[in-house]
Amino acid sequence: MNRMSMINAFDPTRSDALDPTTRSLIERRLRVLGPAYRLFYEEPLHLVRGEGVWLYDANGAAYLDAYNNVASLGHAQPDVVRAISEQSATLVTHTRYLHEGILRLAERLLATMPAEMGHVMLTCTGSEANDLAYRLARTVTGNRGVIVTNLAYHGVTQAVAEFSPSLGAGVPIGNHVRVIPPPDAYHSDGDVATQFAQSVTAAAADLSAAGHGLAMFIVDSIFSSDGVYADPPGFLAPAVAAARAAGGIYVADEVQPGFGRTGAAMWGFERHGLIPDLVTMGKPMGNGYPVAALVAQPRHLEKFGRDARYFNTFGGNPVAAAAANAVLDVIEREHLIRHAAEVGAYLLKGLSELADRHPRIGDVRGAGLFVGAELVQDRASREPDRDLATQVVNGLRQRRILLSASGPGGNILKIRPPLAFQRPHADTLLSALDEVLTLG
Amino acid sequence: MNRMSMINAFDPTRSDALDPTTRSLIERRLRVLGPAYRLFYEEPLHLVRGEGVWLYDANGAAYLDAYNNVASLGHAQPDVVRAISEQSATLVTHTRYLHEGILRLAERLLATMPAEMGHVMLTCTGSEANDLAYRLARTVTGNRGVIVTNLAYHGVTQAVAEFSPSLGAGVPIGNHVRVIPPPDAYHSDGDVATQFAQSVTAAAADLSAAGHGLAMFIVDSIFSSDGVYADPPGFLAPAVAAARAAGGIYVADEVQPGFGRTGAAMWGFERHGLIPDLVTMGKPMGNGYPVAALVAQPRHLEKFGRDARYFNTFGGNPVAAAAANAVLDVIEREHLIRHAAEVGAYLLKGLSELADRHPRIGDVRGAGLFVGAELVQDRASREPDRDLATQVVNGLRQRRILLSASGPGGNILKIRPPLAFQRPHADTLLSALDEVLTLG
Repeated sequence: MNRMSMINAFDPTRSDALDPTTRSLIERRLRVLGPAYRLFYEEPLHLVRGEGVWLYDANGAAYLDAYNNVASLGHAQPDVVRAISEQSATLVTHTRYLHEGILRLAERLLATMPAEMGHVMLTCTGSEANDLAYRLARTVTGNRGVIVTNLAYHGVTQAVAEFSPSLGAGVPIGNHVRVIPPPDAYHSDGDVATQFAQSVTAAAADLSAAGHGLAMFIVDSIFSSDGVYADPPGFLAPAVAAARAAGGIYVADEVQPGFGRTGAAMWGFERHGLIPDLVTMGKPMGNGYPVAALVAQPRHLEKFGRDARYFNTFGGNPVAAAAANAVLDVIEREHLIRHAAEVGAYLLKGLSELADRHPRIGDVRGAGLFVGAELVQDRASREPDRDLATQVVNGLRQRRILLSASGPGGNILKIRPPLAFQRPHADTLLSALDEVLTLG
Repeated sequence: MNRMSMINAFDPTRSDALDPTTRSLIERRLRVLGPAYRLFYEEPLHLVRGEGVWLYDANGAAYLDAYNNVASLGHAQPDVVRAISEQSATLVTHTRYLHEGILRLAERLLATMPAEMGHVMLTCTGSEANDLAYRLARTVTGNRGVIVTNLAYHGVTQAVAEFSPSLGAGVPIGNHVRVIPPPDAYHSDGDVATQFAQSVTAAAADLSAAGHGLAMFIVDSIFSSDGVYADPPGFLAPAVAAARAAGGIYVADEVQPGFGRTGAAMWGFERHGLIPDLVTMGKPMGNGYPVAALVAQPRHLEKFGRDARYFNTFGGNPVAAAAANAVLDVIEREHLIRHAAEVGAYLLKGLSELADRHPRIGDVRGAGLFVGAELVQDRASREPDRDLATQVVNGLRQRRILLSASGPGGNILKIRPPLAFQRPHADTLLSALDEVLTLG
């Protein structure tokens, strides 16, 4: 079933067991939103309130959120709420009038990046940022081809869906797209850096032979949907060099790892010592307000700026800029990068200790507060245990802890809580996971 | 110059005449936002506050806004601001959890539409809605071809830019796209309805001969960027029939005319007695909050829903739904559709009276508070007078009244104020226009 190609999707044929209120909401959804929407969990959640790392359902029950990286500072973070409220009451226009907010935001974002990155373009969504990256990559290189990893997700526009294989077989990838295995050190014998670079070189040669050429190599620096691959830092560099040698540019998709989540730096690509051609960012940028961006080396915008213009009605409006500036304020003031490193390390250590007692935890890995735990049938074969992952995700949900899974086997627990996550929250998660694995 | 292919764009080579503060902001913009951004007016505006139909610059000067249709209820409309603030402080998640707000919004939107329209999908931007419409049109028809009008604008994603010829020659239209003349009764001798339908039939035949087939015929129901073509109501119907006869579906792009602006109904297609296959909407939907949508006949989502899934991180989040629900509340409570009809008729009558005294106003037209006034060199030739339009737009801006121009000759004044616009505001606009035309 294609529906099931999405990990942790609710199966609407199994709604009989649900309470009448939930069932009624699901029926209304199906009626008015139609068949393309999906819900999380065997028993979907009806959330009505959020605060910090906590989400509350309609009955007042509190859920520990270890999954939502959009409200990345924490749900309803008061500085961001205030910035949105005040600017909404003051002015909402667009980028064809002058405004301080967007300039301040762009200057601050650039200050977090290598000096080579010089221009910021504001969009509303990560999809739009990646779509624009592809338009630029085509303009800059004159080529059409794209290289992505096996289960990459970069967005849902027509152009971006064609290079987002994680959308499933029902959304065919473009004939100008090549998919390569992710840098999976757990299932590989050799040096993932070299293997990954070799895959890029081979895919680029194939694109060249097909007449497409390579426009861009785009990767999520933390490989979120592929299964969370973080180490060793630097492994991405040879692949990027290979893409450039083949005439393509390198786009760092920071929608998942950006804004300090990896604990090492503001951006995921920094862990790999890279200077991207283009950087895209989205989800956590406004802590829930729709704002996203593309950052470019100026030389890559020269031709596009001569031939075309870019306008995004809502992109970079004064409220978007206010929200994003507030997010940067909080990251700085609360030292959230360091915090992500510390609590992330604590969580990873706790997971490693759990793995000592639960052999079906085959591997734990990650960077900062982006953590993966791979569940396997046994450690010798390393075969994915999808059923166990489903049990764990739903078992934790029953214990009011929210996370999900990723990877081709659907067996890699994906843990990426709001950065307000503290050690006691990690303890709560670890002890519930212990319990679920003991039962499972 | 391509930069000048955008009507009413600021020319950065002419910044010497500006005051130092404005010049400094423009220099920062160029430095950090890069060359693809454009500003309005010969003397760009630095706006810091808005309220109702008024915008205020950094010196406190008030501008009468006769142009911005995003803050369509009026700038900083308090009900919408309150809805955004309260929901932002309560919960911002996404559509993979259950939430009442999006269901209520979808049900209310559907209640404004013909019974055939059954599903709502939420995006963040009109570009994303039109991009999704194209994905659906391809899925439904199995074809690739698109028919649009000469200067259509539907958005900026890779796929949508290919069928947005108003972006200029630097953004080539796709080889699967055919452009046809808009239904311009002022420059046409015959029956625009028949001519427009014949153009669709010919374009569809050409797409078929080229092997693309027709996926969709997409039109802005008020032809905003083509030059504002509203009458006679119903003229669109034969063209839609022609597109369907050729195997395509009809997409009503309501980003410009939607949400009551035409004064005749909630949606522009209603003036033409049509039932669309898909409807897209955006700009005014959240009065400035980034929210947009696609509404579909359910049969057009069946195959897509089986093969694919749709998720838009920010699209339809609880704040987006709260903002859009508040917009619907205000439109109902303040009878803004009737208001748009009344004030629009008053404005149109005033423009007609001005035309009696100013022969270079060749035509006035529109529907509700979407009004066009075509400036010509003389009434016999009907030749566009672009220079006069530039003088008028900038002369009004110096008199602190904001509007712009559209059309292939850049000579059609485009007037689409926030719906809070009242008769005294129309009087202010008319008397300033009288003055500028007298001087010009």
